[in-house]
Amino acid sequence: MKYQPVKGTKDFPPEEARVRQKVLDTLKNVFETFGFQPLETSSLESWEVLSAKKSGGPEVLKETYNFKDKSGRRIGLIYDLTVPLARFVACNPDLPLPFKRYQIQRVWRYGDVARGRLREFLQCDIDTVGSESMLADAEIIVCAVTALEKLGFEDFTVRLNNRKVLASLVEKAGVCKEKVVDVLRALDKLDKIGTEGVKEELKRLKVAKQVVEFLLDVVGIRGSSEEVLSYLEKTVGTIQGVTELRELVGFLIAVGIADKVRIDLSLARGLDYYTGPIFEISTGKGIGSIAGGGRYDDLISIFSGRKVPATGISFGIERILEVMKDRKVDTAKRGICVFVAAVNDEVRVDALKLVCKLRKACISAELDVKKRNLARQLEYADALGIPFVAIVGKKELEGGLVKLRDMKARKETEVKVEDLTKILGERCP
Amino acid sequence: MKYQPVKGTKDFPPEEARVRQKVLDTLKNVFETFGFQPLETSSLESWEVLSAKKSGGPEVLKETYNFKDKSGRRIGLIYDLTVPLARFVACNPDLPLPFKRYQIQRVWRYGDVARGRLREFLQCDIDTVGSESMLADAEIIVCAVTALEKLGFEDFTVRLNNRKVLASLVEKAGVCKEKVVDVLRALDKLDKIGTEGVKEELKRLKVAKQVVEFLLDVVGIRGSSEEVLSYLEKTVGTIQGVTELRELVGFLIAVGIADKVRIDLSLARGLDYYTGPIFEISTGKGIGSIAGGGRYDDLISIFSGRKVPATGISFGIERILEVMKDRKVDTAKRGICVFVAAVNDEVRVDALKLVCKLRKACISAELDVKKRNLARQLEYADALGIPFVAIVGKKELEGGLVKLRDMKARKETEVKVEDLTKILGERCP
Repeated sequence: MKYQPVKGTKDFPPEEARVRQKVLDTLKNVFETFGFQPLETSSLESWEVLSAKKSGGPEVLKETYNFKDKSGRRIGLIYDLTVPLARFVACNPDLPLPFKRYQIQRVWRYGDVARGRLREFLQCDIDTVGSESMLADAEIIVCAVTALEKLGFEDFTVRLNNRKVLASLVEKAGVCKEKVVDVLRALDKLDKIGTEGVKEELKRLKVAKQVVEFLLDVVGIRGSSEEVLSYLEKTVGTIQGVTELRELVGFLIAVGIADKVRIDLSLARGLDYYTGPIFEISTGKGIGSIAGGGRYDDLISIFSGRKVPATGISFGIERILEVMKDRKVDTAKRGICVFVAAVNDEVRVDALKLVCKLRKACISAELDVKKRNLARQLEYADALGIPFVAIVGKKELEGGLVKLRDMKARKETEVKVEDLTKILGERCP
Repeated sequence: MKYQPVKGTKDFPPEEARVRQKVLDTLKNVFETFGFQPLETSSLESWEVLSAKKSGGPEVLKETYNFKDKSGRRIGLIYDLTVPLARFVACNPDLPLPFKRYQIQRVWRYGDVARGRLREFLQCDIDTVGSESMLADAEIIVCAVTALEKLGFEDFTVRLNNRKVLASLVEKAGVCKEKVVDVLRALDKLDKIGTEGVKEELKRLKVAKQVVEFLLDVVGIRGSSEEVLSYLEKTVGTIQGVTELRELVGFLIAVGIADKVRIDLSLARGLDYYTGPIFEISTGKGIGSIAGGGRYDDLISIFSGRKVPATGISFGIERILEVMKDRKVDTAKRGICVFVAAVNDEVRVDALKLVCKLRKACISAELDVKKRNLARQLEYADALGIPFVAIVGKKELEGGLVKLRDMKARKETEVKVEDLTKILGERCP
């Protein structure tokens, strides 16, 4: 085929597009119930914004589509929704805080397509800007859990950690301050490259052997939240990070989702900008992480010049959509309910009128616009999976009747035209 | 401010984003009822696709954001949804025809921002691919009319014409075939540059004076559809274009929207690719055109190599959204219903629990995540326009009560906690 979608991009035909819409509608509803409000920003941002300190970082920028506009200014396609949020907050100093927003938009990353990654994909984020309270983090987590439950996910766990705790642990182990971020990044790869891989990386960073052993012991700790918290209080003391973690866990217990949550000291999250609680949600079914986020109290100040704390979570929406697609989401409601077939050309206009009448009653109805014979019309209705066909014929019509064919049961019954709206309204709710 | 949105792009804060969502939801519902199905394609297309013959044309390509990807291939941001549709149909030869799709996506044009045009804007199209019947065109028009009515537009007119008729008229007047498209493009500017302006342009094209007079007479013809059709049958005969126009008008009369429709021989529509009926919907209120489209039977064959007739309409969605914004669309349903305020820190967790309970019942509820005092919490609720505040205090709570404050009436009543869900469910439907 001569013309193809651009490499790393995909078409979503109706059956997939419908699942996507349904999933997004569900998410939006949950977000709205939790008081998050919609925000839309441009897909284009200036290079100054995209490359600002603490934003994407060099790895992400390497994968960012960018080009000069006609005036010679460099602009690029957004690679996440956090940077545009930070820029938006900075541009709107009068915004009442806390500002709680959700945003669902396409983002672009020119990454390796070999691993099934798309270069254009949906991003779905919720964030609370302007609160440093653990209540805000708790709310983000509860909202994410509720959203996933509404989508039918059952078997998932929220892993919790805190960047301040991690930093303390690493420093406590004797790693110098300059190396902390690199060490955290190495520890973050535990799931991907295993204990030996992490050991290698830490060795390369010239971390002493006994420090490596200590760190691997610590991140391997398992136990109830209370057990891990007690351990931390003994090891690093009641530093702010530990207090935050205890407070957050307390809120999650209070709202009854403690069974979904577990403190995991190996969780580090790749991005540099996290400053406090971090969280990641994964299912047990080998799908990996389906949501992740944390608190980033310093990012927005880069743009706005004033300290604005923030916390949020990003849903791995393409991954979630893949799972939903396989799960055969019921989107039948939005499908076409009835095909109105004309027996011959004589009754085409009558068929058209009937279709209009049904649509006025909000019944999704379709008619033949190719002047095909009845058999071909039935074939087409079948190919589209339309459950009912109303067959309009001259003789029946004169008696105020149409034939209604149930495509699945392969049965036809004569019904009054005036009853059709009611009958179909009941069968295609 | 150091960081700004890119020139020609805009942020849509919650109040605007909410109107946008509501308008799009309304449109989607109408489209689905008419049997149009959602399609999503990439924002990126290869330069070969974007610049294919009969696609955008040089004027549009000049305004198309494009750049080389890392492999050196030129790609660009889409400037409309018709070209991606044509490419999609070509890539999916097994698609059951007719394929009726709607598509709502951002598109980009690097145009003149001085005239209030955005460089990134929403496009909203419906198209029927694979039918050459006037029924398909009629359906497109009825769907557009229904959609606009659902959005609350009352005073609008569908202007109809046919490219074949225009071509015949121009040829009949004595213009040679090569000049037909240029002459049509000049006539299309009648609304913008007036009779004298068009005369100038035609003079520049070296069209004879009496031909100019004839053409301006013809395009100035007013009258009922029947009168204009009779005139055409006398002037150019019952050529295919006239027959098409008569058939289309017949269908529109049959479905009862004839009063909204008028044949306007001055309507030409700028784009080159139209081959039959063309239509444009405008309101009387100086807003100008809010939707426009027509039949393009040759465009898809450029991509697919086989003849695939098609017809569709594009909504001037940003213009429609501007009108809707001013009209104060009721989006209250999706706003926050209640703010749960904590009198002091002692009851913060109780407030959190109450919020969770309300949200479980799908009541959009908000709480303080900044540990503010009661007065500040009420101020914030007011700033967000939240109609009710539930005030949680230790003493009331022990009696199973909360204070419910009606923010508008500035009245407080004590209600049982267990009744709160029911009470708010009724007041925030």
